Amino acid sequence: MTVKTSPSGKGIPEAVQLKRRNPVPSDIEVAQAAEIKPISAIAEALGLLPEEIEFYGPTKAKVKLEVLDRLKDVPDGKYVDVTAITPTPLGEGKTTTTVGLSQALGAHLGKSVITCIRQPSQGPTFGIKGGAAGGGYSQVIPMEDFNLHLTGDIHAITAANNLLAAAIDVRMLHESTQTDEQLFDRLCPKDKQGKRHFSINMYPRLKKLGIDKTDPEELTEEERGRFARLDIDPNSITWRRGIDTSDRMLRSITIGEGPKEKGNSRKTGFDITVASEVMAILALTTSLQDMRERFGRIVIGVSRNGEPVTADDLGAAGAMTVLMKDAIKPTLMQTLEGTPVFVHAGPFANIAHGNSSILADLIGLKLADYVVTESGFGADMGMEKFFDIKCRYSGRIPNVVVLVATVRALKMHGGGPAVVAGKPLDKEYTEENLELLRAGIENMLHHIKTARKFGIPVVVAVNQFFTDTEAELELVRKAAVEEGGAEAAVVCKHWELGGEGAIDLAKAVVEAAEKPSHFQFLYDLNLSIKEKIEIIAREVYGADGVDYLPEAEARIEDYTRLGFDKLPICMAKTHLSLSHDPSLKGVPKGYRIPIRDIRASVGAGFIYPLLGAMSTMPGLPTRPAFYDVDIDMETGRVVGLF
Amino acid sequence: MTVKTSPSGKGIPEAVQLKRRNPVPSDIEVAQAAEIKPISAIAEALGLLPEEIEFYGPTKAKVKLEVLDRLKDVPDGKYVDVTAITPTPLGEGKTTTTVGLSQALGAHLGKSVITCIRQPSQGPTFGIKGGAAGGGYSQVIPMEDFNLHLTGDIHAITAANNLLAAAIDVRMLHESTQTDEQLFDRLCPKDKQGKRHFSINMYPRLKKLGIDKTDPEELTEEERGRFARLDIDPNSITWRRGIDTSDRMLRSITIGEGPKEKGNSRKTGFDITVASEVMAILALTTSLQDMRERFGRIVIGVSRNGEPVTADDLGAAGAMTVLMKDAIKPTLMQTLEGTPVFVHAGPFANIAHGNSSILADLIGLKLADYVVTESGFGADMGMEKFFDIKCRYSGRIPNVVVLVATVRALKMHGGGPAVVAGKPLDKEYTEENLELLRAGIENMLHHIKTARKFGIPVVVAVNQFFTDTEAELELVRKAAVEEGGAEAAVVCKHWELGGEGAIDLAKAVVEAAEKPSHFQFLYDLNLSIKEKIEIIAREVYGADGVDYLPEAEARIEDYTRLGFDKLPICMAKTHLSLSHDPSLKGVPKGYRIPIRDIRASVGAGFIYPLLGAMSTMPGLPTRPAFYDVDIDMETGRVVGLF
Repeated sequence: MTVKTSPSGKGIPEAVQLKRRNPVPSDIEVAQAAEIKPISAIAEALGLLPEEIEFYGPTKAKVKLEVLDRLKDVPDGKYVDVTAITPTPLGEGKTTTTVGLSQALGAHLGKSVITCIRQPSQGPTFGIKGGAAGGGYSQVIPMEDFNLHLTGDIHAITAANNLLAAAIDVRMLHESTQTDEQLFDRLCPKDKQGKRHFSINMYPRLKKLGIDKTDPEELTEEERGRFARLDIDPNSITWRRGIDTSDRMLRSITIGEGPKEKGNSRKTGFDITVASEVMAILALTTSLQDMRERFGRIVIGVSRNGEPVTADDLGAAGAMTVLMKDAIKPTLMQTLEGTPVFVHAGPFANIAHGNSSILADLIGLKLADYVVTESGFGADMGMEKFFDIKCRYSGRIPNVVVLVATVRALKMHGGGPAVVAGKPLDKEYTEENLELLRAGIENMLHHIKTARKFGIPVVVAVNQFFTDTEAELELVRKAAVEEGGAEAAVVCKHWELGGEGAIDLAKAVVEAAEKPSHFQFLYDLNLSIKEKIEIIAREVYGADGVDYLPEAEARIEDYTRLGFDKLPICMAKTHLSLSHDPSLKGVPKGYRIPIRDIRASVGAGFIYPLLGAMSTMPGLPTRPAFYDVDIDMETGRVVGLF
Repeated sequence: MTVKTSPSGKGIPEAVQLKRRNPVPSDIEVAQAAEIKPISAIAEALGLLPEEIEFYGPTKAKVKLEVLDRLKDVPDGKYVDVTAITPTPLGEGKTTTTVGLSQALGAHLGKSVITCIRQPSQGPTFGIKGGAAGGGYSQVIPMEDFNLHLTGDIHAITAANNLLAAAIDVRMLHESTQTDEQLFDRLCPKDKQGKRHFSINMYPRLKKLGIDKTDPEELTEEERGRFARLDIDPNSITWRRGIDTSDRMLRSITIGEGPKEKGNSRKTGFDITVASEVMAILALTTSLQDMRERFGRIVIGVSRNGEPVTADDLGAAGAMTVLMKDAIKPTLMQTLEGTPVFVHAGPFANIAHGNSSILADLIGLKLADYVVTESGFGADMGMEKFFDIKCRYSGRIPNVVVLVATVRALKMHGGGPAVVAGKPLDKEYTEENLELLRAGIENMLHHIKTARKFGIPVVVAVNQFFTDTEAELELVRKAAVEEGGAEAAVVCKHWELGGEGAIDLAKAVVEAAEKPSHFQFLYDLNLSIKEKIEIIAREVYGADGVDYLPEAEARIEDYTRLGFDKLPICMAKTHLSLSHDPSLKGVPKGYRIPIRDIRASVGAGFIYPLLGAMSTMPGLPTRPAFYDVDIDMETGRVVGLF
């Protein structure tokens, strides 16, 4: 195979010519009609060696982390983050723009480009939201694989998460019926030669306790007790079980009601797997060793005397790492136009940081001249966390921010009627209305300003809908550049046209990527928890200040005492407003942010203040999306995914 | 590549030479030291076409069912079932013998052979039992992949099982707050053009209700109500949630205790995924279409007026099929000596039928001259179900039964002290004791007799342990042939020597496979439920009769009324005794079988009477196996799996 390379020597897989139809068919019809290349051809074109890839069928492949060692001296490509203004509940086409921009860069401008996006949860796929592979002629394919099991990463997270959950409860159960000496005897039983051994996963706890003995027999009685009894306070447990199904009846449950477990029943619940700390760790880790250490640091609760109890104390972090050893490798797929895509990790964007994995980006930056990555929700949420959490842990700095805006969302911010999923749009959204639009543009200007605070050039992508008028589009474009200071603002039609509809956007991104960037974090990690929260609230949300409920105050004291206060902050906030109140549109003024409670994901490495009740388990409607999903027995094809 | 073929034209992959060490290292050390062939080479040698296989990394591949169409005119190979006498709690090496026999056939006798075994649950792997890939020099590799996620089939089962569970509870929740008309309106909402549609998964319910209209508007009010309201009786629900973790605190739980679900809370629980009906369906299905239909037939409970409610009534069976569309393809792996292995399905052997998939066997029989498949537990359980359930649905008849016996287990049956996992063996087991052995041989003779009732020749494999004496082995061998009427009885050492240690066994199997078999089922499906149970109890277990508790009587009436009485019977019984009482060893006499309750797996296609309390969710000990499991950061290898 002759491989095309860029001037820097990076690979450019051959583009696939779209065979477009008009009107645009449904997403699954577009996806299933597409020409799909063997993923081996794309891997080869990227310069990946056969021993660096593991196929999962003909259209997916995992890429081994060893490639980072081999390419460590290759200069990084340009790093482009796609974010958005404050969206309507319908979303403004951020993933579609991410994919469309990549198709334009790779298939139309002939650039070397890799797209990095999140793996979606199966729960919403069968519930309300549907799939998340992009849309129209800007999609990742095969969309069935993308939206279903993919290469099993989320399932591995469920397994690792639930292994730790089972370990916690069963340990409490056994501790409730055994003396210290019995516990010790069972944790370190005599082998056939009558000798006791520590197992590999006991050493982290021994180290934490300051015990450096390697022969269990040498432990004093006091040391045996300290080692063997974790004495977990059941009321302190924050670790919940995980499942990748939208099952609202599991939000709040009582476990341990069997006759043999009865004395140990307690209230807990399931979160959807993508809301778990294990998922956040996968997204933020930088190596297998780093992932092992992060798992070990996970705090599941505290002991009755107030000391944090970790996954390493429970001996579970090694097995969790083994369960995740393949999930740590990004999955290579392709767009409709044959450009490469990494799909890897998909942490919740409210209680977690909502960005795809650091590792996919790191590998992408070595393999391509442009990495286009997407951060979840609006720029106040996903982009801020991208900079202050993800970039802090990865050590990488983006070159361009692409801010997706739509006329529809801006009109809503200008005072238009509520936009509700499943209901027809009001006429304010289907007819020209420059007044509403003009008022709503403030929201876009605010987000541009935020991105520029970090020192990164901004390109605005106006994702055009067929009801938008020329005057409306021009108004947005002009304001973005002239008032906001964006490098450029470009109208794009990639949903309808694929990469061809985003060529101007791609050109603007290429140009902006050459500009100097003066990146700086928003806050210093050494500030106090409250100082960090204040900075985000004022600078990014435009609030006047922050108020703390007593629970939050108490947690801040605890975390400061325990040394968790040097972690970055991951605000758990609605994405439907710059403020904590989803009904406040535009750029809310004169309000204060209330912090209801604060939690720590010590393994993932962030503190997350809760600015309201965040659902971590979606429900299903009366008619869930699964009603449409089946296999056509004639063709063997999946029908009804969207 | 030049491919070796058998006289019948079937492929024989090149054997791998074992590099044995003595003493035999740990299973994981043996497995990791092994030379492993690319699975592509094995697939090619088997004559599989590139478009028929999907790689999952370099050592695993799924095989598409289309191969069955291509090879439909190829004659089936010989079909060998490996079973065992009533085992000790330590197991008697049935999987190891299955693998060792295959290695002997393929790598030493040059036969074309495929091994078919079950995928193990991850729960026990991290709990007490450890892995299930065989042992010593008779293993399936890579054992880490085999024992962990493999190709994701069990995760897909969890997803399909739990989608249905969520669908049940959310439907009851929505029905509790909506009128018939509201339900109908939400199930068939108007589209943008004001038209209502049935979705694809609504047609099975419409058909069941005798409604053949395709336009929802044409339904009468009465039809709308019948269609839209399932009116599930919450107390009748037998469908439980699934998880592939040993988590005993989930055995019995209360769900729906959140503020928004409170009125609908109820008691239920989780089973380990492999105990689910979805797993049993995967193991018994014969095609994608058949699987779709079986899912549709699953009965989750009854309505308040006593009618069965199915997965098709809930509209979930199509999506379940989509979730399982890759899991239906068997996974190809290899033994330590490079012979091919299908790993596919692993239903519980007590409440389900405990056999690997029909599809793997069907494909194997087309690709090889010998298929060696294993059935779970002892011959009274796994083998009886293999014949009366699996063979009935597959239409295939085995040629040979291999009955694995050990001197240890036979001594236990002869009155030796209890054998307990984790405790050293008593001297009765480590020193020669012909008297105990002679007494215990009755158990083996009983199982040989059972197999012969089905009309199939029996070869006894005496799995030698290093403490067995010549006199002991000879006593077993002689009794098997002379008293039991086995075709042959062979001492084998495949754990220590790999295939070389099972050459004589392999020769005996080849010879027995040429004998005529006169297969017959044990019972006719048209007999009543009670008649079928009686036949199994008397003929296979040696009981004097059967007694039914009132719950069981009531269920038998229900199932007969509903027409489920023509299904085969899957006895849920301990495997540690021929009887229902695990403490009765040898060949218990003069006892009656008590039937506590009866359940139906209508989708899988069997009725299962409960002969005691069957645990469907294992627990974890104080020191679970996961304590030893970690990744060696120097080598990247998994340590501590066994």
